[in-house]
Formats: sequence, C-alpha cells, structure tokens
Amino acid sequence: MGRRGIELNDVHRLIKSKIEEKKRSTVELLQKLVQEDSTRGNEYKAQAVIIERCRELGMELDIWEVQEQGLKEHPFYRCDRTDFKGNPNLAALLKGTGGGKSLILNGHIDVVPEGDRTDWEYDPYSGKVIDGKLYGRGSTDMKGGTSSLLLAIEVIKELQIPLKGDIIFQSVIEEESGGTGTLAALLRGYEADGAIIPEPTNMKIFPKQQGSMWFRIAVKGKAAHGGTRYEGINAIEKGCTVISALNNLEHERNKRVKDPLYDNVPIPLPINIGKVESGKWPSSVPDLAVIEGRVGVAPWETMEHVEQEFEQCLASLGEEDPWFKEHPVEVEWFGGRWQPGDLSPDHPIMSQLKNSYKQVMTSNPVIEASPWGTDGGILSQGGGIPVVVFGPGITEVAHDANEFIELKRIFQTAEILTLFIIDWCNSEK
Amino acid sequence: MGRRGIELNDVHRLIKSKIEEKKRSTVELLQKLVQEDSTRGNEYKAQAVIIERCRELGMELDIWEVQEQGLKEHPFYRCDRTDFKGNPNLAALLKGTGGGKSLILNGHIDVVPEGDRTDWEYDPYSGKVIDGKLYGRGSTDMKGGTSSLLLAIEVIKELQIPLKGDIIFQSVIEEESGGTGTLAALLRGYEADGAIIPEPTNMKIFPKQQGSMWFRIAVKGKAAHGGTRYEGINAIEKGCTVISALNNLEHERNKRVKDPLYDNVPIPLPINIGKVESGKWPSSVPDLAVIEGRVGVAPWETMEHVEQEFEQCLASLGEEDPWFKEHPVEVEWFGGRWQPGDLSPDHPIMSQLKNSYKQVMTSNPVIEASPWGTDGGILSQGGGIPVVVFGPGITEVAHDANEFIELKRIFQTAEILTLFIIDWCNSEK
Repeated sequence: MGRRGIELNDVHRLIKSKIEEKKRSTVELLQKLVQEDSTRGNEYKAQAVIIERCRELGMELDIWEVQEQGLKEHPFYRCDRTDFKGNPNLAALLKGTGGGKSLILNGHIDVVPEGDRTDWEYDPYSGKVIDGKLYGRGSTDMKGGTSSLLLAIEVIKELQIPLKGDIIFQSVIEEESGGTGTLAALLRGYEADGAIIPEPTNMKIFPKQQGSMWFRIAVKGKAAHGGTRYEGINAIEKGCTVISALNNLEHERNKRVKDPLYDNVPIPLPINIGKVESGKWPSSVPDLAVIEGRVGVAPWETMEHVEQEFEQCLASLGEEDPWFKEHPVEVEWFGGRWQPGDLSPDHPIMSQLKNSYKQVMTSNPVIEASPWGTDGGILSQGGGIPVVVFGPGITEVAHDANEFIELKRIFQTAEILTLFIIDWCNSEK
Repeated sequence: MGRRGIELNDVHRLIKSKIEEKKRSTVELLQKLVQEDSTRGNEYKAQAVIIERCRELGMELDIWEVQEQGLKEHPFYRCDRTDFKGNPNLAALLKGTGGGKSLILNGHIDVVPEGDRTDWEYDPYSGKVIDGKLYGRGSTDMKGGTSSLLLAIEVIKELQIPLKGDIIFQSVIEEESGGTGTLAALLRGYEADGAIIPEPTNMKIFPKQQGSMWFRIAVKGKAAHGGTRYEGINAIEKGCTVISALNNLEHERNKRVKDPLYDNVPIPLPINIGKVESGKWPSSVPDLAVIEGRVGVAPWETMEHVEQEFEQCLASLGEEDPWFKEHPVEVEWFGGRWQPGDLSPDHPIMSQLKNSYKQVMTSNPVIEASPWGTDGGILSQGGGIPVVVFGPGITEVAHDANEFIELKRIFQTAEILTLFIIDWCNSEK
C-alpha cells in the first residue's frame, strides 16, 4: 500500500467521523430549509437560512438581486418573471491557496408548488422526519442536495483540509422556471473548471442531461352546431392528427439515437403532450384546440435544430390534409427552456467523481443520461464548464405529493463530494 | 271554382290585410321581447310581455311556477335547475266552439347567453331593426316564432273567425336546457290533437327531429414526468383513441339510416366531440382526459338504445388495448337531453300545413328532418301528440352573435299559420 493510500484512508476516516458528528445539525438545517416555503417569488426566507450558514462557514458572500437588464439579450434567457426584488441569488466563495482546479457547487433554492394539499399525508412544509426520511416540498428537489454540499464544505473547513482551487457555492432562484438564477450567476462572472449540481439523481451520475423546451400549438377548426357538424371542422379531431404526427416525429428522432448511455432508455428524446384544451359546449363543433407539451433535446442537439425539425413536421401536415395547408397550425415556444448537457463520460471530473463514489459506496456508480434538463446546461453550453449532475434526492418523488429524501443518502453524498472536492481542487489546473 | 275556394280566397284576403295592419305592433312586440334578456333564471320579464299580450287577446290564462316535485320521477326529466320561482310557465287558451281538432302552439321564452359581447355589432338586447331585419339574442330562437303565433291568434280574434277546436298557446321556460318547461305543461294536463313549434327552421317543415344527449367520458392515464413519459400512460393519447372509436361508431350508425328525409344530409346522426380538457403542465404526462360531446338520436330510436350502443362501443376498446380493459373509460349522461320527434310526413297535420304553405308562398315547402331536438320530442314521445316544427327564424344564426330575423318571414309564417289553424281547428276530430 502506497503512502497516498494510507493518507487518504486517514483523511477518509476523519471525514466519516466528522459527518457522523454533523448529522443532527445537517438534518436541522434541512428541516429549516423545507419549512420555509420557497416557491417562486418566495425564495428569500429559505435563501436567508443558506446565507446564514455560509456566513458561519466563513465564506466570502456575494448576495445580489437578479436584474432583467443585461440578461434579456442572452439567447438562453426565457423568463416571464420581471420582478426579482427581495429574492436574491447567492454565491459564496471558499478561496483556495492557488494552482488547483476550481469548482462550482450549484443548488437551486426554489421549489415547485405543493399542488393539492389533500394529497399530502403531512403538511407539505413540515420537514417531518420519520424512519430516516425527511418529508416535505423541496426535500428531494433539491434542498437535500444543497445540504450535502454545505455539509461537505463544513467538513473540509472544520478538518482544515487545504484546497488549492476555489470552491464557488451557488444557491440560485428560478431553476424550476428555466434557469434565470444560474444564468445570472454565469453572467456575473462565476466560472470554474468544473461544476457539480446535486439534483435528485438517486445517486446516479449524469454526465449528460436531456434538454427540453415547451411548445404550444394552436390548431384551428371551424365552428358549427353539433347537429350539423359536417358544416364545421372539429379542431379536436385535427388536434388528434397533430398529436399522431408528433408521435411519429418522436419515433423518427429516437431511431437516430446511438449513444450507449441511452441503451436502456425506452424513449431517450420524448415529445410529451402535457395539456389539451378545446371547446366550450358539448353541442358545438370547436374551432380551436390548444396543445401544450415538452420536447426533449438531445445532449448533442441545439434547440434551434429541434425547433426547426418540429416546425417542419407540423408544416408537412398540409401535404396530407388540405385543411392544414389552408390553416397551418401555429407553434409558440413559450415558457422555460432547459439547455441539454453533454459531457464525455471519460472527462477527468467524471473519473474523479466515480473514484470517490467507489471509495464510499464500495460499488460502481450507475452512469446515465438524465431524462430532464437542469441548470447544468446553462453552465456547460453557456460557460463551457464541465458539469456533472449527481445528488442524493429520489427522482421519482420530485414535484410529487409526499416528497421525501432518505437522510442516509444526504450523508453518503456529502462524504463522496468531500473526497471528490479534495481530489479535484487539489488537481493541477 | 267551387264555393269553398271563393270563401277561402276572401278570408285569405282579409287575413293578408289584417296582418298588414298589425305589422308595426308585431315588430314592437318582438322588440320588447328581445329587449328583455330572458336567459335562464331571468325569464320573467319577457314572459310578462307575453302574458300581457295574451290577456289583451282575451285568452284564458294559466300562469304557474314549475315545481321539481312531480317532474322528478318522469323519465324525460333531466334538469340541474331546482329553483323556478318567479319565472312562470304560461298556457293561454282560446276555447273553440267544440267538435274540432285542438292545437298546441308552443314557443320557448328562454334564450341562450349572448356569449362574447364584443362579437356583437349592436347590443345583444337592442332589438334594432335595420333593412327589414330585427337584431338581438332570441330574435330568431325563438321570440320571432312566438310573435308569429301571437299574430296569427290576433288575426283570428280580430276577424272573429270561428274555430271548433281549442288553441292552447304555450310560452315555456327551459327549452335550451332540456325541456323542463314543456314537460311541466304536458304533466299539467295540456294535450291536443296536434302541435306546432315555430323554432327557427328557415320556414322548412320538420315532421321529424333529431334527438340528442350529452355525454361526458373520463379517460384515465398514468402520471409521469414528461422526460420519462414511458413510465406513464398519456390520457390525451388514449383520448384520441376514444375519439377515433366514436368516429367509427358514428359511421356505423349512419350506414343504417334509410329514411329518405335524410337523403341530402351528410351525417344524419352525428356524434360531436364538443370539449376536451386534459393535463395541467407541459412537462407532465396527464392522467385524466375529459371528453364532452353530443350524440344525435334518430327519430325512430330510443335514448336507452343509443346509450347502450355507445357504452358498448367504449367497453369494446378493452379488446384492442389492455389498458382500457384495466381502466375502462367512464361515461356519464349529463346535462340536457332532447327527445327525437318522428311524425309521418303523410300525417294530416303535415298535409294541411303544406297546403297552407303553398297558398301563401305559391311554392312547395321543403320537408326535412331537423338536425337538432326541440321540445317537440317531449310532446310527441311523452304525450303522443303529432308535432310539426316550422318557423320563421334563421337556423344558421341561432345561438350565434348578431342573431337576427327577417321580419318578412314572421309575417309569412303568421299568414301560413292563420290559414292552417282555421283549417285544422275546424277539421272534425
């Protein structure tokens, strides 16, 4: 056994015992974070808890309100919120001694709404702990992941482990609505040699992430009384034709996917029909159907390319059906857009993270491509930063009622990340 | 030329000149009726105008509030309104001298809502007259038709033309919501040897009317994130399957139609998809789609039969697709139901009406089956009364913005009906 092996094992032992010591306070921190409902526009109270902890950790704080100005021109900006007042972004710096690789640790503070409260067994903002699980909106997505980050930083600080590279911890708003918080951080100048985003991945490691865009399609019909429906054109029936064309497009797009990371994914690039509204009266032929959905963007695709292919598919409907030629469907790319991420699974940040994972879990990690976008796409596509998405949360319960996280995984993730940070930030640039 | 011919021509001349004399007051009456917005729950003011006119005509008045009690048990009753207070039904009797055939003249006082006011060129309740057309909600459907009835009665009264059979004039509520007003009149004991309902038929004569029923179908899916949509079942896509099955059922049903009255109707028995709602979020797989629509009932069909055939079609979806076997769609027969009407085109009431039509219009009337139900179905199916639907209103503008009626047609219809009433009510029972 070489010297380095022994040293690492010693450090690892210290890390393990420090994490053990900090379990209780970490759970309390996460409870506080969950108890502060940080849905869109209400991020400030949970953000204050994070700021307070970063201050205690002696980090250099940069707290700022996002300004629409300056962002508006960026091609990734797609946001229907104009007022960010009182709900700041945070970047907290742990300065390295120099010469090592820098690292962004990024978590979003915003959570999606709790939905129907009657679907929840406990109050959605209870932070209740039962049998090693902590319950509440945001526990898994992704305040639990952020707690792992803060625990890793705390361990490194308390054990006084020297780092050459900087750590830039970011707690951002707006991830759930398209990433304006992370985009603002990037445009404020925060770049690094790598980034980790602990979104709920079930502790799988995602070097690639599916991007996505929302679409809204207006399908025209012609109104008539239902009794003489042959005098009208039913927008709902035409809408079914549109949906079927999109199913075909999805099929075509997925036939082209060769990346082995998708070998076990039934539909790597889904086109999801999420919402349809048409008609007002059972006895009338509806003259408009509005279809909303989400199209998945491959890690290697540009959004512009996907838009083009999508619009072309819909334009070609007119070749089969003259109604569509005379009344082409209208496509609107509205709402949030999540850039895809496309890191090589062989990138050094991947190897080092896999290594740390193996040291802690004594098994190989699952490497996959995520079926959803994260703020990682903004950092990688917008800032050229190698990004890995890896976190303790449970994919299946994100955005759902009775969202929870297993506390054990938060500690395991913190342990893996502590080892990884030491390794990464002390690697030469 | 025989004696009867000369007499009729003389009477006809008198009728023509009486109608000429009454044109202005008839238009004023219709204006008043249109100006009183008699949407559901607000029928009383327009009804008061009718009552006042019937009183002036010296008719025997029966004004009563519909009571849910007693109606509730009737198989045709399907009504979501429980409070009829203050909005009475009216029956006004013009007693005959005895021995002749009695006649119900039925018009509904309720109108459908005006919809989006900005779609109207004039105030929807203006009653404005421009170029021989009177504009406003209810002008065509069917206050114009009711004005024809009242004018015919007025002419007969003023010319003191003797009638053997009784005339029962009815002004009822609730036609637009399924016919509770006419059902209440029937159950109050008002029966007759024939009935005319001057709904807007473009002065076509409809011995048969398509009935209709509303349906609501709940199609189940399974929720999932759009990025892993293969983990869910899309209720919208399953909804398209349901719609396609209903298109097939419509096709099968219409293949069986042999009645020559439908020779020129592309879809005699339409199944109209009127409304679809599914999903809430573009990035989620929706777990429920709700489809509402209207199924046409043939004059010779019972509603129970159509319900059965419809439900069977949906139940058979499970044979092709196991999802439907495990999650059968749910069908609800909600809202209004309009009974079909099925009078032989050779019935004496038809021959006499056609005759009167020819005398006034000097051309043959168009005989058709209406593509929508009226209160006629309740009188014929529920009371065994031969019903003909024939009126001055314009089919195409009923329920639409900028509804209007041509005044000329009101007078022509009144003239035809006056001749018909004299003929019918003086025919031997």
